[in-house]
Amino acid sequence: MSRGASATKHKAVLDAALGVFLEKGYLGTSMDEIAAKAGVSKQTVYKHFADKERLFAEILLATVDEVERLVRWIVEEFDDVRKVEQTFDRLAQRFLVALMEPRLLRLRRLVIANADRFPQLGRTWYESGFERVLETLAECFKRLNSAGMLHAENALVAANHFVGMLLWIPVNNAMFTGNEKPFTEAELNRLAKASADAFLRAYATVDLKRIRP
Amino acid sequence: MSRGASATKHKAVLDAALGVFLEKGYLGTSMDEIAAKAGVSKQTVYKHFADKERLFAEILLATVDEVERLVRWIVEEFDDVRKVEQTFDRLAQRFLVALMEPRLLRLRRLVIANADRFPQLGRTWYESGFERVLETLAECFKRLNSAGMLHAENALVAANHFVGMLLWIPVNNAMFTGNEKPFTEAELNRLAKASADAFLRAYATVDLKRIRP
Repeated sequence: MSRGASATKHKAVLDAALGVFLEKGYLGTSMDEIAAKAGVSKQTVYKHFADKERLFAEILLATVDEVERLVRWIVEEFDDVRKVEQTFDRLAQRFLVALMEPRLLRLRRLVIANADRFPQLGRTWYESGFERVLETLAECFKRLNSAGMLHAENALVAANHFVGMLLWIPVNNAMFTGNEKPFTEAELNRLAKASADAFLRAYATVDLKRIRP
Repeated sequence: MSRGASATKHKAVLDAALGVFLEKGYLGTSMDEIAAKAGVSKQTVYKHFADKERLFAEILLATVDEVERLVRWIVEEFDDVRKVEQTFDRLAQRFLVALMEPRLLRLRRLVIANADRFPQLGRTWYESGFERVLETLAECFKRLNSAGMLHAENALVAANHFVGMLLWIPVNNAMFTGNEKPFTEAELNRLAKASADAFLRAYATVDLKRIRP
């Protein structure tokens, strides 16, 4: 089989597996069902993924690429300190859109559901996604501290405050109610603006406040 | 059977069911197993709970009593506006302790895991727990607005900001890693203080700030 055909099957199995895991949960999912849904043989599934646990892990870790994109974007956005205030508004909007993506919400629910079964996998997802973004944000906040624009003594706590204010309502609503679109885009934009404003009131210095409209 | 013996069995079934649900998930749990673990007959289980779904619902809704206690405490604490600043510190600590209670964390994970199966149940839990506490907090914030101590234009958003800053780190850590004691008491106290301080910087008026140490 050509490398291209193999890659296509690999992706078909991953997509099918995600669907079955989300529908039936980890325990309720069988490799047979994944093979049937992907339209490949069970042998093909096992050729690509040694077992169900490793297949599950690969699905989760595939989201790390998206995290990398978000991290690069954050660093670039904060590069120009003259435009920092608008950056906070854009950052809030971008985070909300990224975190409220229905597929990511479903994955999040799946990881939480299996955190006691696979604590190491949940921890890896948490550290390579969640914490990596927060650490990047904290590094940017430290530079803004040095530039006299923020007074975030503990930059990592400040980063968590930013994200917590922003995401607590919509993410929990989605987690508990199973509703993947609990808010309209206009509502999300209002939530984003309110969080960015509250964050700047809590952490910006007078210098930064002065450039606010 | 006396009413007391019946109540004892009722509680034994609830406790056993919670244990099995947490261990095996909703789908993996059978009424047989619950009966065996509770040391009662299957008939007894069905006498108390018509089916697995209603048993699951009763476990979740039993936590609403704890919410009521928290709500009454919030209202009493904010009753004396002369001590408001200390109230925020105490509120932050009390919330962290209440929400990081291992049993509640495990229930939270169980509800999230089954939110797409029982959206109505998840919604009820969310509304009668989560939202009820936030609405109570928002009512208190409105009184503090009127007393000139806060400037929380949207009191409900401010309540969510308070809770989001406070709980985002520890609750997510517990959710993803399955670790029910991710932080020491001293660490939780520092997180509580940092959130209360950031909240007051974002929302307190000069009047309230003046009474700060």
